[in-house]
Amino acid sequence: MSLENQTADLSLKNGKAKPAKQPKQNKQQPKNKSKGAIEGAAQVGVTIDKELDFPGWYQQVLTKGEMLEYYDVSGCYIMRPASFFVWEKITEFFNKRITDMGVRNAYFPMFVSSRVLEREKDHVEGFAPEVAWVTRAGSSDLEEPIAIRPTSETVMYPYYAKWIRSHRDLPLRLNQWNSVVRWEFKHPQPFLRTREFLWQEGHTAHLTKEGAVEEVDQILDWYADVYTDLLAVPVIKGQKTSKEKFAGSLFSRSIEGFIPTTGRGIQAATSHCLGQNFSKMFNIVVEDPSAPEGTEKGKLHVWQNSWGLSTRTIGVMVMVHSDNNGLVIPPRVAEVQVVVIPLGLDKKATPETIEQVTAACQKAEADLRAAGLRVTVDARDQQPGWKYADAELRGICLRLEIGPKDLAKGTALSVRRDNRAKAPLALDSLAVEVPKVLDQMHNDMYARAKELFDSHIKTVLTVEEMGPLLNERNVLLAPFCGEEECEDVIKDATARQNTEDVDERAPSMGAKTLCVPKDQPELKEGTKCAGCDRPAVAWTLFGRSY
Amino acid sequence: MSLENQTADLSLKNGKAKPAKQPKQNKQQPKNKSKGAIEGAAQVGVTIDKELDFPGWYQQVLTKGEMLEYYDVSGCYIMRPASFFVWEKITEFFNKRITDMGVRNAYFPMFVSSRVLEREKDHVEGFAPEVAWVTRAGSSDLEEPIAIRPTSETVMYPYYAKWIRSHRDLPLRLNQWNSVVRWEFKHPQPFLRTREFLWQEGHTAHLTKEGAVEEVDQILDWYADVYTDLLAVPVIKGQKTSKEKFAGSLFSRSIEGFIPTTGRGIQAATSHCLGQNFSKMFNIVVEDPSAPEGTEKGKLHVWQNSWGLSTRTIGVMVMVHSDNNGLVIPPRVAEVQVVVIPLGLDKKATPETIEQVTAACQKAEADLRAAGLRVTVDARDQQPGWKYADAELRGICLRLEIGPKDLAKGTALSVRRDNRAKAPLALDSLAVEVPKVLDQMHNDMYARAKELFDSHIKTVLTVEEMGPLLNERNVLLAPFCGEEECEDVIKDATARQNTEDVDERAPSMGAKTLCVPKDQPELKEGTKCAGCDRPAVAWTLFGRSY
Repeated sequence: MSLENQTADLSLKNGKAKPAKQPKQNKQQPKNKSKGAIEGAAQVGVTIDKELDFPGWYQQVLTKGEMLEYYDVSGCYIMRPASFFVWEKITEFFNKRITDMGVRNAYFPMFVSSRVLEREKDHVEGFAPEVAWVTRAGSSDLEEPIAIRPTSETVMYPYYAKWIRSHRDLPLRLNQWNSVVRWEFKHPQPFLRTREFLWQEGHTAHLTKEGAVEEVDQILDWYADVYTDLLAVPVIKGQKTSKEKFAGSLFSRSIEGFIPTTGRGIQAATSHCLGQNFSKMFNIVVEDPSAPEGTEKGKLHVWQNSWGLSTRTIGVMVMVHSDNNGLVIPPRVAEVQVVVIPLGLDKKATPETIEQVTAACQKAEADLRAAGLRVTVDARDQQPGWKYADAELRGICLRLEIGPKDLAKGTALSVRRDNRAKAPLALDSLAVEVPKVLDQMHNDMYARAKELFDSHIKTVLTVEEMGPLLNERNVLLAPFCGEEECEDVIKDATARQNTEDVDERAPSMGAKTLCVPKDQPELKEGTKCAGCDRPAVAWTLFGRSY
Repeated sequence: MSLENQTADLSLKNGKAKPAKQPKQNKQQPKNKSKGAIEGAAQVGVTIDKELDFPGWYQQVLTKGEMLEYYDVSGCYIMRPASFFVWEKITEFFNKRITDMGVRNAYFPMFVSSRVLEREKDHVEGFAPEVAWVTRAGSSDLEEPIAIRPTSETVMYPYYAKWIRSHRDLPLRLNQWNSVVRWEFKHPQPFLRTREFLWQEGHTAHLTKEGAVEEVDQILDWYADVYTDLLAVPVIKGQKTSKEKFAGSLFSRSIEGFIPTTGRGIQAATSHCLGQNFSKMFNIVVEDPSAPEGTEKGKLHVWQNSWGLSTRTIGVMVMVHSDNNGLVIPPRVAEVQVVVIPLGLDKKATPETIEQVTAACQKAEADLRAAGLRVTVDARDQQPGWKYADAELRGICLRLEIGPKDLAKGTALSVRRDNRAKAPLALDSLAVEVPKVLDQMHNDMYARAKELFDSHIKTVLTVEEMGPLLNERNVLLAPFCGEEECEDVIKDATARQNTEDVDERAPSMGAKTLCVPKDQPELKEGTKCAGCDRPAVAWTLFGRSY
């Protein structure tokens, strides 16, 4: 944080710089402004309204909040420290859980030969159009083009065949934290759809189907925990339909999030059971340990899983929580949780006042840091209002204002970023009180997002009801037969315009299935599919989605 | 570790599997065997002698010790968990130091447009022959080929120009942990020269040269600490000559290691002061804060550094410490520090004995784990001798043997991996004693390597002395004028055959400068350069090198 470098500047000279106008939160937005500009918003802050121009707003909160920078290769973005910090927190959280379970980290090369990439047919078909190919090194053409991994199943599994020599080598559980490349030609969007992105990919092999499935669900639970416990974002666990599952898997489970502003669902993470599909392709076998002694032991193909969580997490977090004043970052992943802002250091301030306020700010910082919090003092030569706006733009969770009047009362005025709630906190118990406020903030952020998600899940029984409810930015729970062609019918029927080439940005695309939720309402005997005459097999979540 | 999955198998059935012959350490090697095969070595262990066929031995300890797997794209290798764990420990150690200093982690794209890559001329010339180019995505040719970063100076600095708006934004200190690609056509070698490798690259900008230089040295100290404190490998700090410095830098400092078996030096990490070279290219400027109030403020180009440490660390560690029985991994980075091996569980063992030994092994494991050690019980259905050999192959630091006789004495027999020193340790104080043994092992490993390095640094005054001493696997400290053409002369004069295309594998290449050591012996007034008639400016370390 560049803020930290400025601490020493405190009390140098005050009141010289003109404060920038603080962007105001406008409850009533001009409705007919095509670009969604916020009235009266200062240029330094967010100037585009979240409700009126969501993509424009998203770009602004990310760049002005210094999370992200646009890059000169299309579809690639720079993760600045504020967003990379979030990713590090996610990494730490999830890595601890999987390594405690016995997963070991490794690193496989980013390059794949075309021969290996193309070994599993269904799988490669899913990725082939997006694979980036290296064909030249220096000024020499390579003999054979080499792909950059879009995912690592085919990179890793030839070696699983080599390393797994006996059932005693099972389960084999490896994970890597790396970047993958999918050269999509659709409109890119920071964190959500990028040509290179960071993720973890776990790849495991098990003796039995039961062992594999148990892990699929364990991982899914932890993915959900990342969203709820770290990012304060509600998600729904479920299983993908056969149309939407991972190419080459037996079944795919996922967690699905919701972006209230657009009413679109978003796949938040996936945990796939690959079955024996890849183990048959790559000949990953062990002798059957249950064969009776003395008999010839049959070969068993191992059961495999793969599971991944990406930097998409960060995009979902920003879209759900942030507002027209900038980023709102949940406390457990915020690089800066608390900013201390000295007040009353204007021209009229006496040297004693300056000294006392400065000392109190530094003590607050020291106390909070000792309590394990991430805190900074904003001692820059700017007016308090400018600092408030700057802290809001960056999504600092809590600001503590300390001026002569506060000192007289022995308190600091705390202001929460998420709901602007103000409360005086005793200066001598900051180390105890601030963590409580931050926990409350996390819980409140989650509760608000959960309520919004829940209130936008509408139950429908027929495809005719779907269109209008989708237009009102809902996702839909409908009885569904699970058939691929029926899913296509529903998608067509719910698209506002039935053009061949629907623009992903427009909220007019048809609805896809998001998942079959794990938590199923009762499905009455004889309930028909919402899309056809077949009987429904499960309540299924539909939505326009990212 | 697959070992851990086997714990439950203890006491299942004993003595069934035939123990593999344990490879013996042969002090006297057959001198005329062209392949360096170790006599009597079992096929499962290392079969090639370190002294006789170093590259063959290196490949075997890495693959049989399960650190590394060869990969089907030439020059790329799989880092298996045992080596990735070492990298994670290095990451943790160094990351803590730089983030405490105020460096922030970020992530920049792996792709660079050719326009940006080629902006700094000297710099790109150093890398151009090794750059991998993506020219195709799916089945479409890209409009412009896109490079994969060989390093990120030109990736990052255009954005530094944008982000640094005032001297208050300085120092700007970013770091990333990523992989880079240098498509070398020289013979690849695991960890030392690979086409993709993992590293960290720090890139910082400072207001003053002093600030930049101070950081260069701070980072170099921490790099040295990684080698000495974690890897038990001695290094020498120094500065690169102008011929060997990083392309585009003002000066480069490095730490240099030594591989005793080949007598070759190896660059272990580098910390570069880039001066204002890149800031002039990319126009990274701030207003001069020292300009008097009211005058027009001049522009200052910022001072920049870049510094990197790579997975080469792991290769150096293995080459220095490991032996003909397999890996020797220093305790602070070993994934498994202690293996507990139950003894006396053969056919004659009573159920009581089995139960007591098993319980004692489990208690030892629990005690050591509670003390923060990484420990496993090898309860596999194999003979102890086989387990000893397996633990040695993997470089597990300490084995604890526990059998009925040990139990009667209340001790476990500890055997160190590095020097095979045996000592009984009281079972009820393992949690206290084992950490001491591991610390001693670290210190002893460092001391041995340091003594070997020191005894192979020979002081010379003339180029004529160099050849024979190099052939005896020494590096050389010589008075040197610092001139590039003189360096070329010395290189030619010290090559055994003056062929145009020297094979890097052969120890016959000419000597290069490794560094001008920071720690300089007295250079007497009037001392002449070892290579020419000019006066020497500094004692300089020369060697055949990797």
